[in-house]
Formats: sequence, structure tokens, C-alpha cells
Amino acid sequence: MLNVALLGFGNVGRALAELLMQKQDALRAEFKIVVRVVGISTGRHGQAIDEAGISLRTALDAVRYGATIEGLHRGNEIKNQTEFLRDVPADLVFESVPTNPHDGQPALDYTRFLLGRGVHVVSANKGPVVHAYRELTALAADHGVGYFFESSVMDGAPIFSVAREGLPAATITKVSGIFNSTTNYILTRMEEEGLTFDQAVHEAQKIGIAETDPALDVDGWDASIKTAILANVLMGASLKPSDVDREGIRDITPEDIRQAAAAGQRIKLLCEAVRAEDGTVSASVQPSRVALSDPLAGVSGTSSVVDFYTDVLPRLTIVENDPGPVTTAYGMLADMVNIVRKRYPLTGDEEKSLDEG
Amino acid sequence: MLNVALLGFGNVGRALAELLMQKQDALRAEFKIVVRVVGISTGRHGQAIDEAGISLRTALDAVRYGATIEGLHRGNEIKNQTEFLRDVPADLVFESVPTNPHDGQPALDYTRFLLGRGVHVVSANKGPVVHAYRELTALAADHGVGYFFESSVMDGAPIFSVAREGLPAATITKVSGIFNSTTNYILTRMEEEGLTFDQAVHEAQKIGIAETDPALDVDGWDASIKTAILANVLMGASLKPSDVDREGIRDITPEDIRQAAAAGQRIKLLCEAVRAEDGTVSASVQPSRVALSDPLAGVSGTSSVVDFYTDVLPRLTIVENDPGPVTTAYGMLADMVNIVRKRYPLTGDEEKSLDEG
Repeated sequence: MLNVALLGFGNVGRALAELLMQKQDALRAEFKIVVRVVGISTGRHGQAIDEAGISLRTALDAVRYGATIEGLHRGNEIKNQTEFLRDVPADLVFESVPTNPHDGQPALDYTRFLLGRGVHVVSANKGPVVHAYRELTALAADHGVGYFFESSVMDGAPIFSVAREGLPAATITKVSGIFNSTTNYILTRMEEEGLTFDQAVHEAQKIGIAETDPALDVDGWDASIKTAILANVLMGASLKPSDVDREGIRDITPEDIRQAAAAGQRIKLLCEAVRAEDGTVSASVQPSRVALSDPLAGVSGTSSVVDFYTDVLPRLTIVENDPGPVTTAYGMLADMVNIVRKRYPLTGDEEKSLDEG
Repeated sequence: MLNVALLGFGNVGRALAELLMQKQDALRAEFKIVVRVVGISTGRHGQAIDEAGISLRTALDAVRYGATIEGLHRGNEIKNQTEFLRDVPADLVFESVPTNPHDGQPALDYTRFLLGRGVHVVSANKGPVVHAYRELTALAADHGVGYFFESSVMDGAPIFSVAREGLPAATITKVSGIFNSTTNYILTRMEEEGLTFDQAVHEAQKIGIAETDPALDVDGWDASIKTAILANVLMGASLKPSDVDREGIRDITPEDIRQAAAAGQRIKLLCEAVRAEDGTVSASVQPSRVALSDPLAGVSGTSSVVDFYTDVLPRLTIVENDPGPVTTAYGMLADMVNIVRKRYPLTGDEEKSLDEG
């Protein structure tokens, strides 16, 4: 029996709730995991704790009909988020609260608090990972729990688990790819229909792929954060997003795209982290021409891709095609299973030697 | 301290020997594994057992200079392969002996014998997996050891470990891809240079990519064996290679390729295993037209690719680009680490429920 809580009940949290219901038989049969939801904290629909278990269906219906979930609460009154985090009797918390990617707050403080209480944390947020990966992983290890974040990059496709479980003793010399789906969608529309940048942004906004202020995506910040995460987690670097040599796609014109096409190339917002001979890792995000024959060229729309270059497999490419709303939620569910299976990352001495290796 | 033996010392076995030397510091630092080689069995250079440890460098040099490795042997005389398998004091055996893919022998009998002795087996051979996956995995579980075979498909790229560790509780509904590099190389040369099938086969033979008798590759047998392996291991099927609906590439003409190109497509030897509504799994290998915009179209030459279709990630594509000679050896080394970490597959009741799930 695994007691879990959902901290954040927006699109991701609610998709996770659906998935937990859908997969309960498989989790029990394959991994002997019986999930009991003992707490839910929403942004605008209240909070509930019940150590006997909360019905996800009832909570989802309450939110769908605009009600609060407070009727599901049992026990002492919870006055605020801090009291929820302190009182919720969970072994594991799924964290998907709205968070500022530039400083990781408030998710970062919540995660520190929970790990310090000896609670596993599964997070979909980039901010805490990029700002405090080493601190949080060490804190988790000190308390014998896991801090997992598969869904922070590429929507829950198995990137970190492939590196951790599929590439043991390999030295990763370069990680590259297309990590921001909004800009990839914009560039794809510009190429396929000859749209200008502004027109393509407008199209992306219409279907909810781009924000009203698209700066985080189109100026390369989101891609820089993800690139720094991969450099820090997979290559032992300590990069901040501002350390990434960053160029967005605002200045790309239909003419640039036509010229690239005439040369048998496509323009992609290419992310890259490379280890130099002296061991230092540098990273960049910039619009780049990619040959049509390259696997990256075929990654269109909201799909994304990562390339691992190692000393033992020349180049391993992983493409996540057309992610759906369930994808991010699935990454969180996979993290839960991998925490129960104790697939913890290397830490401390082992990580040190990994950096040197 | 992990006592290992190399059963088979051809290209794969010798590349593995080099890799074990190269990675000894990383294995010790990251995974606390100290490898001691206590036995080597070669095809034409004799056999050696020494429980105190055999120098891989000396063994490699002996074979390189055409000598036998029998001078490295300590202890009772070994008269034949059976005595080697009986006497070698190994915890884990790396099996890469020349094997008939149609019946899996002699590797299948060797593997049965070793697992029955309670010895972990890491195999690079397809034959034993496709003919006896369930039997061997159950036998390994009965004796508390591992039977791993990452290098049997796609040269050691992490395919089975991704499915096992990266996709927990996911239901795989379809696996497809390009699994035979010889035919992919032949089709690539035909397309890029307008060669006929016979000319392209001849080119592939010149550089050692195709055998003198290329039937196993060009008639789709190798691809069918790999497709059946993926269906059996990842989708709970029980297919024999002869159950795969198979068509090779002998009849593909330059004109076929030109017509496909004119329609914005490429011809690939596409492998596919699909689960039907009623739960049964069927498989096929046949030349198919693939749109240039599809990730599969960009996989050329000796590269290979697998697509996982699941209920939670619409389509996850893994491309192994330009595999080198070390790739197969690396898959075996990764298997060794994953056996030491006890990343055993689900078996028995758990597997049953997986089939139903």
C-alpha cells in the first residue's frame, strides 16, 4: 500500500488522477503497488486530506463542476499550503504546482520541505531540477527517499530512465536535440505553409500551444532550462539556464527557411550540451540548419527528440512523437514505479567518480 | 568481485574483452563491480580456466598472434566444451558462440546447462531467445540468476532495458522498425546510387556487411527472428520465426525505388508486431513504402530503429545510428551491470497479468 498525495490538480494533476485509476490493476499485478490517495491540494478548489483514502473520481467530478474538494477532507482543519505539506500522511507526493521556471518557486521550497520530512517527491516541474538538482538529490538520499522528475523534459518520455538504466558505465560526451515543442511547432508551420513568424505564433496561440506572452518559448528560455537540466543530471555539469549560450527564433524569416530548404536543410531550434577535452561542459540553444537526411529533420510539430552521444554507442536517438495530454502524467506514474523499485540515481562518491569518468 | 567467463572469443568476444579492460575503473567506481575473468573458451584457439584470474591482454595477444590460450590454463585438463561449461568457476558467462539462428544451437544447450548450474548468462545470440525465451527466463528465475540478451537485437542499443525500466505499466500495442542492417544498407545504396539489387549486395559483401550467401538477411529471416523476439519478450507472444509473415527484398528493383521517391517515399524492410483487439499478436516483415517525413525514412545505411506504440506514449522511436564494433559488446556489458543490479524481468504470475493487461 503506497500512500500518495497530489500537490497541484491542474491539467497534469488531473490527467495523472485519471491514469492512476486506469492503471490500478496493472500496478497491483505487475509491481504489487496499491495506491491510496490520502491528499489533494488544488490551486482554486481547496485542499483535502483523508488518511483512509480519497476517491479520485469524486475529486475530479468536484473540480469539473466547479466545486471545491473540501467536502472530502477528514480531520483537523488545514489553514494553508504549509499545513497541508506538514500534515499530509503521504509516502510519496506528486508535485505539479504552477511554478516560476526562473527561480523554481514555489515548487522548490515545497520539494525541500517534503524530502526533509522523508517523503518521496515526483515532480513535473523544471525549475527545482535546474536550480537545485544536486541539493535535492542529496537531501533525498539523506532521508532514504527518491526525487524523480522524468516529466520535466520531453513530457514524460523515458529520457532519464534510459540514461540511468540503459546506459550504465557509458560516458556521455554530448547531449543534443529539440526540446521545446512550441518553437518546433512554429518552425514547422512556417516551413510547411510559408507563414511569417508572427502568423505562426498566432496559430500556435489559437490552439493553446503558445502562451499569450510567448517569450519563454520563442526566446529559447524553456529550451535553455531543459538543456541545463540534461547537462547537470547526465553530464555532471552545474549550469544555470543563464549559462546556456541562447538565441531564440524571433528573427527567423520565411526567406531563411526557403534558403535552408533549397540547400536540403531544415531550421530547428537545436539544443546542445557538450563536454570539452578538459572535462568542462558548455551548452547552447540556437536556430540551426539540419540536413534533411538527419533524424532530427523529421521531428516536426510538437514532437521532440534527444540524441545521446557516448563512447560506446556512437549516437542513440530517442524521438517522442505527437505527445498527448497523458504523456506528462505517465512520466510521473513511471517515476512512482521506479521509486518503489528503488531505481535511485547514483549520488555522493559514486556521482563524483561518474563526473571524473 | 564478479567471476566471469567468455564463451566465444570471436569479434564480439574480443571487443567485449577490450571493453571490460577499458571500463574496469568505471565499473568499480559507479557500481562496485570488480570483474575477474576466470575462463575463456575460443573456437580455434583453445580454452583456459584459472580461478585466480586470466589476463585479457595476454589472451587477446595470444589470439592476435595466432597462438592458443591454453598456456593460460591452470588446473585439471579440459577435454572439451562440456567440461569447460561444467568446470568454469564463473558467476556469469558471456555467451557469443557461433550459433544456428534457425534452431539456436549450440548456444541454447549451453545456456540451459549454465542457468541450471545457477550461473548468470548474458548472450549476444538471437537463436536461444527466439526459441526458448520463456523456458530460459523461467529456468533463470528458478535458480535465482539472470538471463539477459540486450545485444540480440539492434547491436546492444538499449531496447529491452528501455521497455523494462522506462515503460513500467505501459501496454505495448505495436512494435515496429528496421531491424536488419544489411538489407537497410543494400536499399540505401540502391536508392542513393541507382544500383541494382545484385550490385548493391555485391557492394555490401565487399565491406563485410553481407555474407557470401546473403539469404538470411535478404530473404528477411534475420528480421523475422528479431521481430519474433520483440513480440515474445515485449508483448507476451509465442511466435516462431516461421510464424512471421515474411517477404524479403530480392524483387525490389531500381524502378520500384524511383517510383517511391517520386511519391515522396522510401522503401524500407519494415518489421512489425501488432496486438489485435482479441489480444493475439501477429507479425510481419516486408518491403514497405515509408513517407520521407516519417522518422523511419531517415534511418539509412547500417543504422536501425524501433518504434514502441503504447497506450501512454503514442509513439516512442529509438534510433541506433552507425553502430560500431563496440556496440554489441557494450550491450553485453550493460547486461552484466543490470544483472548485478538485479534488474530481472517480470516472470510467472506477474508476466501473466502483464499479458492480460
